[in-house]
Amino acid sequence: MERVDGRKPGQIRPVFMTPNYNKYAEGSVLIEVGDTRVICTATVEERVPPFLKGLGKGWVTAEYAMIPRATGTRTVRESAKGKLGGRTMEIQRLIGRALRSVVNLEALGERTVTLDCDVIQADGGTRTASITGAYVAMILALNKLVEQGMLEKIPVHDFIAATSVGIVRGTPVIDLCYAEDSAAEVDMNVVMTGTGRFVEVQGTGEEATFSRDEMNRLLDLATAGIQELNKVQRQVLGERISAGMGQV
Amino acid sequence: MERVDGRKPGQIRPVFMTPNYNKYAEGSVLIEVGDTRVICTATVEERVPPFLKGLGKGWVTAEYAMIPRATGTRTVRESAKGKLGGRTMEIQRLIGRALRSVVNLEALGERTVTLDCDVIQADGGTRTASITGAYVAMILALNKLVEQGMLEKIPVHDFIAATSVGIVRGTPVIDLCYAEDSAAEVDMNVVMTGTGRFVEVQGTGEEATFSRDEMNRLLDLATAGIQELNKVQRQVLGERISAGMGQV
Amino acid sequence: MERVDGRKPGQIRPVFMTPNYNKYAEGSVLIEVGDTRVICTATVEERVPPFLKGLGKGWVTAEYAMIPRATGTRTVRESAKGKLGGRTMEIQRLIGRALRSVVNLEALGERTVTLDCDVIQADGGTRTASITGAYVAMILALNKLVEQGMLEKIPVHDFIAATSVGIVRGTPVIDLCYAEDSAAEVDMNVVMTGTGRFVEVQGTGEEATFSRDEMNRLLDLATAGIQELNKVQRQVLGERISAGMGQV
Amino acid sequence: MERVDGRKPGQIRPVFMTPNYNKYAEGSVLIEVGDTRVICTATVEERVPPFLKGLGKGWVTAEYAMIPRATGTRTVRESAKGKLGGRTMEIQRLIGRALRSVVNLEALGERTVTLDCDVIQADGGTRTASITGAYVAMILALNKLVEQGMLEKIPVHDFIAATSVGIVRGTPVIDLCYAEDSAAEVDMNVVMTGTGRFVEVQGTGEEATFSRDEMNRLLDLATAGIQELNKVQRQVLGERISAGMGQV
Amino acid sequence: MERVDGRKPGQIRPVFMTPNYNKYAEGSVLIEVGDTRVICTATVEERVPPFLKGLGKGWVTAEYAMIPRATGTRTVRESAKGKLGGRTMEIQRLIGRALRSVVNLEALGERTVTLDCDVIQADGGTRTASITGAYVAMILALNKLVEQGMLEKIPVHDFIAATSVGIVRGTPVIDLCYAEDSAAEVDMNVVMTGTGRFVEVQGTGEEATFSRDEMNRLLDLATAGIQELNKVQRQVLGERISAGMGQV
Amino acid sequence: MERVDGRKPGQIRPVFMTPNYNKYAEGSVLIEVGDTRVICTATVEERVPPFLKGLGKGWVTAEYAMIPRATGTRTVRESAKGKLGGRTMEIQRLIGRALRSVVNLEALGERTVTLDCDVIQADGGTRTASITGAYVAMILALNKLVEQGMLEKIPVHDFIAATSVGIVRGTPVIDLCYAEDSAAEVDMNVVMTGTGRFVEVQGTGEEATFSRDEMNRLLDLATAGIQELNKVQRQVLGERISAGMGQV
Repeated sequence: MERVDGRKPGQIRPVFMTPNYNKYAEGSVLIEVGDTRVICTATVEERVPPFLKGLGKGWVTAEYAMIPRATGTRTVRESAKGKLGGRTMEIQRLIGRALRSVVNLEALGERTVTLDCDVIQADGGTRTASITGAYVAMILALNKLVEQGMLEKIPVHDFIAATSVGIVRGTPVIDLCYAEDSAAEVDMNVVMTGTGRFVEVQGTGEEATFSRDEMNRLLDLATAGIQELNKVQRQVLGERISAGMGQV
Repeated sequence: MERVDGRKPGQIRPVFMTPNYNKYAEGSVLIEVGDTRVICTATVEERVPPFLKGLGKGWVTAEYAMIPRATGTRTVRESAKGKLGGRTMEIQRLIGRALRSVVNLEALGERTVTLDCDVIQADGGTRTASITGAYVAMILALNKLVEQGMLEKIPVHDFIAATSVGIVRGTPVIDLCYAEDSAAEVDMNVVMTGTGRFVEVQGTGEEATFSRDEMNRLLDLATAGIQELNKVQRQVLGERISAGMGQV
Repeated sequence: MERVDGRKPGQIRPVFMTPNYNKYAEGSVLIEVGDTRVICTATVEERVPPFLKGLGKGWVTAEYAMIPRATGTRTVRESAKGKLGGRTMEIQRLIGRALRSVVNLEALGERTVTLDCDVIQADGGTRTASITGAYVAMILALNKLVEQGMLEKIPVHDFIAATSVGIVRGTPVIDLCYAEDSAAEVDMNVVMTGTGRFVEVQGTGEEATFSRDEMNRLLDLATAGIQELNKVQRQVLGERISAGMGQV
Repeated sequence: MERVDGRKPGQIRPVFMTPNYNKYAEGSVLIEVGDTRVICTATVEERVPPFLKGLGKGWVTAEYAMIPRATGTRTVRESAKGKLGGRTMEIQRLIGRALRSVVNLEALGERTVTLDCDVIQADGGTRTASITGAYVAMILALNKLVEQGMLEKIPVHDFIAATSVGIVRGTPVIDLCYAEDSAAEVDMNVVMTGTGRFVEVQGTGEEATFSRDEMNRLLDLATAGIQELNKVQRQVLGERISAGMGQV
Repeated sequence: MERVDGRKPGQIRPVFMTPNYNKYAEGSVLIEVGDTRVICTATVEERVPPFLKGLGKGWVTAEYAMIPRATGTRTVRESAKGKLGGRTMEIQRLIGRALRSVVNLEALGERTVTLDCDVIQADGGTRTASITGAYVAMILALNKLVEQGMLEKIPVHDFIAATSVGIVRGTPVIDLCYAEDSAAEVDMNVVMTGTGRFVEVQGTGEEATFSRDEMNRLLDLATAGIQELNKVQRQVLGERISAGMGQV
Repeated sequence: MERVDGRKPGQIRPVFMTPNYNKYAEGSVLIEVGDTRVICTATVEERVPPFLKGLGKGWVTAEYAMIPRATGTRTVRESAKGKLGGRTMEIQRLIGRALRSVVNLEALGERTVTLDCDVIQADGGTRTASITGAYVAMILALNKLVEQGMLEKIPVHDFIAATSVGIVRGTPVIDLCYAEDSAAEVDMNVVMTGTGRFVEVQGTGEEATFSRDEMNRLLDLATAGIQELNKVQRQVLGERISAGMGQV
């Protein structure tokens, strides 16, 4: 099978990250995965949500949005509609959950890190690019706390990155662009750590189903691709900061 | 490991379904999975959502809600809050997607089947019980269309059922009750067909991660449990109606 | 005049109540009045609304909802619409007001009892069935407080029940089912105590009017019917609990 | 018992109506009942709500609001809160229902008359003053349709007016001002026609109850008071317009 | 050019103000500018918004609304739509800002003055009439605080009034009525102090533009007109109260 | 007076525009004015708002938003709050009005051009940068329609750009950065055409006032600065496209 952009089934798109893209946020990165572009900012606030008050631990949460022309046709703003759609809520819950899996919330202390993922161009894989980018923004923000003497070390013990895999016209492929995504029979988002453990696996066969064998082949592709993403993250963060996150 | 209610790791809770529980709906069932109870009704309407108008195919969608005291402490109504929460949206999107995977929407014609899943008591696994029950309510409603001569045959080619699996204190178990669910390190919802193919796999390690091996063990448990649920569905629907859905 | 279900003008429908229908609520009952079915749960919380803070008295309030297929055609959820309709607000204000009329709020102490009335099948008279059922759920919850030593006695001095009366094709009748209700010229909801005093009388002649004589005949019917409902309540609660509520 | 403003138990407050108070509305009146002041405007539109489309009949509906300082302390605007309160909905449903009871909707034709009742000063009895005033605004608007040749005659066959009655410190009184209303044990709103038939009776004993005897005395007071209100309406509308509404 | 109502280009419409129009508000006025009528009430509350807590200074804010038939065709209520429109927000922000420019917020103390401007008839210039009227209502309310000994003197050092100017069929005119406003090429709202300084200048050429010369002629007209409005304000407030506001 | 960033009173910040910044939008530009950065996209749709249906003319409208960390501290998303704030509405109305002033809506035909201005970094002057950038995005989109043969020529006859001016510690200055803006006594936004005519002048003295002289000096500064902005626009669009917009 020929992929629409000539890639091999197991080949991810080029990934670029511009750290400190925003001058106000405690941490920020512009992540580009092919033509998908997401601004990720990390905000640190010295407060926690009500359900954590007084428990001595922190919180990591995320919000996700797209500008109207991130997409091929204009998408109506959720602020204009007056409510968040189900897809948005699903994605922002996913991003927050994924990042929390490697953060030591007790060591973070009574602080909230909010990751804002604003998609300025969407060519497939925006939620996984958001996770991969938000991880870097979060580490940069936490490193600033270390530099300011507010934390002894970054309270994170592993890398987190994510990619999509799917079955397109019968072939399992990785990192689907929008054209592939709309044609896919099976769509799976995988979030993994740098040490190769799963954080989230969300496989969906809308109007289709998939076998255990197919699932295994998709997970193999994802595992390999995420290791490449971890390498880019390591490079962007630099060896000094990455040291505490283990080998990737 | 002793489970909180004495079950074995691979043992699902007792499942009962009361078909035609509601006198108005085209199809309905009260499903009880242990102490979890969900009223599932299927409504057939001779119209489709705007994005399908004139395409000659139908739609299957779902809504999900809990009464305030479905839970141990009272949950504020989403109607009073004025908006649906992220969890609700995630669940109702999941139920709709799961059921659509086995429905031939062209054969359904320009009709919408809406599955309403109202949880009246929640002891874990409400989303998977909703899928298992909604499937039965949908088949009953479609069978009524067949009896009324509006469809030649039920446009569904397989069974659909769902269960949760997870890792509780290190042990993979199936069909977690609320007490287990709150203590689980890994939580996975699996939707499968009667022929053993996956429709959805959603595995989550909130503040934890899981290995490929653990994932495989969870999928084994789910596969076996869902076959049992398919048998109960077959029994409730009867052989005549179930015939077209294949063996389970 | 023949009533649609063969009843006599002054005959109420069969009434069943299943106490403790819900395992989590402090008090609960499933009330069935003919084909009308309402789950009533009572939640006790150790707090009062802001306008009562520090006044040493409690509060009783109610919420009311219908599942979408409680009705002949599917009703859109108020949570999906994002706001409560006027009818819902009117009904839940009525239920709360009715119950408060026999509760000694000072004796209740700084607590709130919330009655949730969730209609799972609606065949007329859902608001009056909600009142009759919510009364029982409330008493069961308050009795639990007595058993736990948090109250010396149930702070309620009388029974409360409700029914509808109306004029259908010229004849005054009691406890209208949906078919009668839609055809009624005059519709009246009456809430009374066990000692025969009025709590609420809401008579409405939409696109019609009624004379003082007709009003009197309707009140006579309601008075007799509510006494029967009080007897069912007494039976469900048992003599020991009912003792403090006076004779009915 | 001395009433707070020296009135006798059966004495209503002075009533003034300024017809054509607004230069744009098809019909309008400023009604003053004591210190209660309501601007009532009637708008005629050549369309009906969706549920009446193509049925050849019209509709009469109402909306009700208060300016923030209509009340002793400032009330937050419902537009600022983003939703209508239960009290507002209850009142506007009541006004619409009351007026429809004497309108021949078929003779009105496919038109909607919207009555807007804006309370600019509230000293008790705002909902009943709204009904009494809205009736006059509606008749003025319908009369304009007759003058323009769009209707042959005003499609209304009777007067409608409303007042409140209640039990204050044991004494049944009519037309309660705010100070009386807040102290009342029983509160009843009565809407009647010019021919002495009831349209609505809403009696409420919040945290109190009332006997059949008390109810009868309240209805006697209301009947007499509403006849006086009908006379003022007749005077404001003039004999020519009032002719078709019967004697009062 | 002949103006629609025969006025000269620089002539404002007749202005009347009825002080203490409302019996509950701390200060109130009914302002009539031609057929435009606005009820302005001032509410004083002993609290400040969160962003001013503990800073020892007060706040002045405004809200603006129209009753549905203030306009030629009925305008849907913003409370029914569930949100404030952009025009409303723009206007109420403008009114608040305008009044704050002459109030010494430190001398006001930790109090909030809320100006409610409710338009009961709209014939152009409602926002400027609101400012001119709200100023008077505010001074009356502050004077009451002085009389009650809560303030030593009215903490306001100048008058504030506003008018509209615009270019209608090529001619600069002042105080546009609705018919002129809808036909204007350029529309400008000017808020000035009694000492002739600008507070706000908002000039707009929707689908048109204007030259520096035209702008100067509009500002000349506005300056003259606002002096007349100041005189009416001075007259309504009386010399004693007006004394501290400087000459006009 | 020394400006915070060393500029002279009449000196604007460096302005860069990256045309075609977004691959999906019909026209787009990233505009940078100092550290203020706004993504402007223009969407062309072959439909008009309801109030223009069938009138043979088009529409130009705008929306404005900021990502949460566009600002020094995180701003809550309006989509999460469920409604647009007054400031947002004011700004998006201003942008749309400003652009419409130079577009021939009849020549545009029954099309809507929507300008989305998404601020990704805010250092003062975001609304004026949005106008300046949105103008370029709009022209690029209209030029595409010309290239596709859907329009004969770009239906725009002049340039539009905007800047802020204000009085900071007594000195009139242009193009205020955030630090200056928060300290300004008077703040004025000016929108002008390339031929030096005003489109909008919005001058505000929050808690301050300004004289006619000061106003004149501010307008002089704005006029000069906007000519510079027009030159940058001309350069970005190129001579061929700019030809029809007149000299600047």
